[in-house]
Amino acid sequence: MSDPWTLHPDRALPADPTTRGIAREIYAATRDLPIVSMHGHVPVEWFAQDSSFGDPAQLFVVPDHYLTRMLVSQGETLPRLGVGSTDTEQVETDPREIWRRFCAGWRHFRGTPTRYWLEHALVEIFGVTQRPSAETADAIYDQVAARIAEPGFRPRALLDEFNIEVIATTDAAWASLEDHRRLAKDGYGDRVLPTFRPDPLLHVDRATWRDEIALLARAADHEVDSYDDYLTALRAQRRAFVEAGARATDHGHLAADTAPLDDVEARRIFDAALAGTVTAAEAEAFSGHMLFQMAAMSTEDGLVMQLHPGVLRNHATAPFAAFGPDKGYDIPVVTEFTRSLRPLLDAFGHHPGFTMIAFTVDEDVYSRELAPLAGVYPALRLGAPWWFLDAPDAMRRFREAATETAGFSNMSGFVDDTRAFCSIPARHDLARRIDAGYLGRLVAEHRLDLDEAAETAVDLAYRLPQAAYPAPR
Amino acid sequence: MSDPWTLHPDRALPADPTTRGIAREIYAATRDLPIVSMHGHVPVEWFAQDSSFGDPAQLFVVPDHYLTRMLVSQGETLPRLGVGSTDTEQVETDPREIWRRFCAGWRHFRGTPTRYWLEHALVEIFGVTQRPSAETADAIYDQVAARIAEPGFRPRALLDEFNIEVIATTDAAWASLEDHRRLAKDGYGDRVLPTFRPDPLLHVDRATWRDEIALLARAADHEVDSYDDYLTALRAQRRAFVEAGARATDHGHLAADTAPLDDVEARRIFDAALAGTVTAAEAEAFSGHMLFQMAAMSTEDGLVMQLHPGVLRNHATAPFAAFGPDKGYDIPVVTEFTRSLRPLLDAFGHHPGFTMIAFTVDEDVYSRELAPLAGVYPALRLGAPWWFLDAPDAMRRFREAATETAGFSNMSGFVDDTRAFCSIPARHDLARRIDAGYLGRLVAEHRLDLDEAAETAVDLAYRLPQAAYPAPR
Amino acid sequence: MSDPWTLHPDRALPADPTTRGIAREIYAATRDLPIVSMHGHVPVEWFAQDSSFGDPAQLFVVPDHYLTRMLVSQGETLPRLGVGSTDTEQVETDPREIWRRFCAGWRHFRGTPTRYWLEHALVEIFGVTQRPSAETADAIYDQVAARIAEPGFRPRALLDEFNIEVIATTDAAWASLEDHRRLAKDGYGDRVLPTFRPDPLLHVDRATWRDEIALLARAADHEVDSYDDYLTALRAQRRAFVEAGARATDHGHLAADTAPLDDVEARRIFDAALAGTVTAAEAEAFSGHMLFQMAAMSTEDGLVMQLHPGVLRNHATAPFAAFGPDKGYDIPVVTEFTRSLRPLLDAFGHHPGFTMIAFTVDEDVYSRELAPLAGVYPALRLGAPWWFLDAPDAMRRFREAATETAGFSNMSGFVDDTRAFCSIPARHDLARRIDAGYLGRLVAEHRLDLDEAAETAVDLAYRLPQAAYPAPR
Repeated sequence: MSDPWTLHPDRALPADPTTRGIAREIYAATRDLPIVSMHGHVPVEWFAQDSSFGDPAQLFVVPDHYLTRMLVSQGETLPRLGVGSTDTEQVETDPREIWRRFCAGWRHFRGTPTRYWLEHALVEIFGVTQRPSAETADAIYDQVAARIAEPGFRPRALLDEFNIEVIATTDAAWASLEDHRRLAKDGYGDRVLPTFRPDPLLHVDRATWRDEIALLARAADHEVDSYDDYLTALRAQRRAFVEAGARATDHGHLAADTAPLDDVEARRIFDAALAGTVTAAEAEAFSGHMLFQMAAMSTEDGLVMQLHPGVLRNHATAPFAAFGPDKGYDIPVVTEFTRSLRPLLDAFGHHPGFTMIAFTVDEDVYSRELAPLAGVYPALRLGAPWWFLDAPDAMRRFREAATETAGFSNMSGFVDDTRAFCSIPARHDLARRIDAGYLGRLVAEHRLDLDEAAETAVDLAYRLPQAAYPAPR
Repeated sequence: MSDPWTLHPDRALPADPTTRGIAREIYAATRDLPIVSMHGHVPVEWFAQDSSFGDPAQLFVVPDHYLTRMLVSQGETLPRLGVGSTDTEQVETDPREIWRRFCAGWRHFRGTPTRYWLEHALVEIFGVTQRPSAETADAIYDQVAARIAEPGFRPRALLDEFNIEVIATTDAAWASLEDHRRLAKDGYGDRVLPTFRPDPLLHVDRATWRDEIALLARAADHEVDSYDDYLTALRAQRRAFVEAGARATDHGHLAADTAPLDDVEARRIFDAALAGTVTAAEAEAFSGHMLFQMAAMSTEDGLVMQLHPGVLRNHATAPFAAFGPDKGYDIPVVTEFTRSLRPLLDAFGHHPGFTMIAFTVDEDVYSRELAPLAGVYPALRLGAPWWFLDAPDAMRRFREAATETAGFSNMSGFVDDTRAFCSIPARHDLARRIDAGYLGRLVAEHRLDLDEAAETAVDLAYRLPQAAYPAPR
Repeated sequence: MSDPWTLHPDRALPADPTTRGIAREIYAATRDLPIVSMHGHVPVEWFAQDSSFGDPAQLFVVPDHYLTRMLVSQGETLPRLGVGSTDTEQVETDPREIWRRFCAGWRHFRGTPTRYWLEHALVEIFGVTQRPSAETADAIYDQVAARIAEPGFRPRALLDEFNIEVIATTDAAWASLEDHRRLAKDGYGDRVLPTFRPDPLLHVDRATWRDEIALLARAADHEVDSYDDYLTALRAQRRAFVEAGARATDHGHLAADTAPLDDVEARRIFDAALAGTVTAAEAEAFSGHMLFQMAAMSTEDGLVMQLHPGVLRNHATAPFAAFGPDKGYDIPVVTEFTRSLRPLLDAFGHHPGFTMIAFTVDEDVYSRELAPLAGVYPALRLGAPWWFLDAPDAMRRFREAATETAGFSNMSGFVDDTRAFCSIPARHDLARRIDAGYLGRLVAEHRLDLDEAAETAVDLAYRLPQAAYPAPR
């Protein structure tokens, strides 16, 4: 291994010296740009309360399902990694033990973006100089713990250290937005933005649905006894989000279906759901209908519509029962866009001011469906490679598969979708490097001039995410 | 930007110097070969009438849906780009205004093949030396307009200038072939060939179907009152195409289904269609049945069968109503070949003299379905990457995905499918460069010897398209 | 061409000199490792009888459907290549004639792995120094024939010459295992292992099913008159395989469905099958049910479960009738894993000691389904690229698509699936070169350190296949 552990300045740039030289020039144009992080899962409380991150295990291991799933696949268990459970297995409470298990499994992350992000964070943010392993675990733990304990190592300070110009959180549709109001009062109103996420309210056959409806009614201060009440309450909450600075809504449906129902049928299904007699097929049709309604509301209130479809959640029964959602058992499925988005795009695809950003974890649709759609409908932008595809080679494949049909101007630019706060600088930096490499190849192949490539790199890193998420009028 | 604007001799060759050096040698073997353009959409009238191309907007912008769709996706409208409409919006009639809008949007084409082709045509054919932009639009307009106005800048002269040995047009099945006869009289009979395109006749539930049947009946001089009449008339028109020099038929169905019906059922559906009572499911079954019949007729008359499935046409309702088809709203869908082609290949896949060429806009099927099928059935050849996939990186992916299973001998070689006449040299040149790069890599990796690679490059550019579209016996 | 014909020491390594230099270092760590060949189709009789391979046509051409399909696609016929038939066409019996036809078609293999493997075998094993062609066919024939006739050129001796540490055969579930016992007696018990392949027994609507059941009953020495008998007999035969050294079962279903039936329904379908009244839908449901049962039995006896789904067998009717299965007419179809494997993984995916290895010929599922599944379920390993995908560029794509989500530790390492014995060294060597190239790129891009890359290369070539196929307890 390199001795001591360092980050090479050319990491993730193409190996070919010609292309690398060009890529270096392009990367120089974006390296120091502020971070625009328009979608993610960092809890708003962190910024509102601005409290300490706890210990290395709480910061890096326990909440990161990218990381825990890999260790589970190699024989670890979630409780031994500190993940709380309703199960009988004892949950590890010693953060140092958890950290040791993580470091002992370091080799399993080879070739993954988790490895790349962690390496970046440990070296850049924490100054670690030795590769994690069973042998080095304790020393690294102490080093990371000491940094975390520093008074300046707080969420708000890190916004500056990480050069984050703006960051969006993801919030329940019925959220009080109290934390965002506190942030606004403290001068962070333009810097930490809420995002309206109504998924559980749109899936009328979920066990939690009626509880969610009650929460919505309370938040909107409007009884929800009918479909029309429901639309009214949703509209009211969207408006509250707009007032709190939101730029976007976010939708994580299984399919991308957007076929609207007529009002009579929508009311009928809603009433059946209230009565507890809704069928799975009705619920599925209703969720597609509601995506259409969300788009319609976006044309009213200007919220950008983010669609993240195609993931079958909680694939394994027992881990879901024991540990809850978001523990690594979410697996993509084939996702269709051409026919599914047709009703929505036919209705709103040329609407001025409406923006829909489509993400996918199904690479097949890049060249076949999403790039052709984004390449003609003014309202549609192609999101950045998402989740499992937010990785160096996958990002390169995205550029190669989508650009020739959609161009760059129909894309969202980089969007990070991060849960692990300390990985944000690594992710943005990596995306900038991959884009520099891709653009560098276009220049090396004389398909683009260098000045165009550098300008495009700045678009992808900074200007396009700003343009894709405009402030509502 | 490079100053002045020029085409680099190594453009679209691999960046790595080792591979580029080899690729240059391979490309030298194909660079000056004549163009064999066996499929496309250049109107036959252009060659028959040999008249002027009008103005820069008419030549480059208005008829090119690759180009207009990108500008539409960025907020332009088709009427402002000169595209005629039944809509109320005023259609721009000043070609210079249209040209300015195109040049102002030049940046949106970065990374697309449209950019690559346009750059090639503007520099090579028109001698343009500055990059298009709002600032340079007028000067480029004047330069292009002057060249278009030259007496020698006529379709037939360009066949020589572009080194086009043979070009096929695409013609309605009921076409009179008058233009092709005139071309034959003028000595262009072996150089401009018709192609038999019966799609609207095979989809019995389209609004226009009965009009099409009437046109067929008139062209074939045979009343079409029954399924048997219909087959007779189709057969007669195919024969007329063969006599006019046609090499192939072309089929643009939504699915690749080729399951035959029995005669009783085929007759029943046909009669229902005449009576206006056919269902969508019946029409779909009938269209698959007719692909099977088209293959059967090909075994009789020797016309090569081209299949271009998998595109959902006219995705947006309002633009279709206002502007008609082929305006950029055609979006690919998942396409299945293994089961769909089975009836046809089972019946005719080993028939001597039958050739089917399968194209796709669904990259997923290259390695999974089409290459395995083409790698065993003597009748099947794998067409070149089509439409959205006729692009540098997509062509490279095609070679990488299909060659290992199908080899080179089971491919059609390059087929351009062009509507924009001036892009033909650019497209063939680009394909030769990409193939040189791919073959150069095989040589650099010692998987092929240089003499084999050069011979294969000539196959792909010239011999295979000739062999794939033989003259009917 | 290179003169004389030789194998370049850097073949199949990346062209870029920087990456090639690193890849050479990594390849040096695996080049001389023994071969662990845990799945394949070399007949066990060859090793049991240790007899001569006959002639060059019998060794290289007649049994290799990769090779014959390509020649058929170019107009040869199977009988002219010596493939026996029930058809009227005369079967070529002169091996020299067959060999000439193969050599005359050598150019059609350009760019295919068959070409790469054959070149490796002809040069390395047979010392051939000229490229095959119509002109060189006879001389090469004589050279190969002479080597085959050498007393030392026998299967067991070649195990040493090829450095094969262990090789698995594939055996019918009702096999007597006589040959394996003879091998054990001769000291080859740990070197040539059987594999339990029950496919024809699990598809209850196949014409041969009742014959297969009779063979199972005889082998297990247990009457099979009911579903419970059937499970008992299967269990007994699995145990016999374990005792004969088997490590794994192998399953070649069309779909990956693993949904279990309840016992009543399973018994009912089984009885219907015995009575000859089973429907296609029942048979399909039963085959999925039996995959679940096979997994359950694996948790009892420790046999690793290999799943090879997604191939539609015998696509063309006439060749199947005339020549039987495995003649090149097996074509992949879309294959779904996320929902299909859910019942099995939900039940056994965390079972200690259970291992399932999933292979695919549908590249789309790498990043979308198989890597996410293998990246969390401890029981699941991702198999090596299979069949059409066991090729240089396809192997590279597999690494690039799967590693970022699954890492290396969740993979089987290289598994060759070979029918053509002499290609085994070529295949393993090629896989090691491709992995060295991929890992070399990660090092060149500073995403991995060189020591980690070399260790990982050894994992993929040697340690992981051993670990993925542990001896049952």
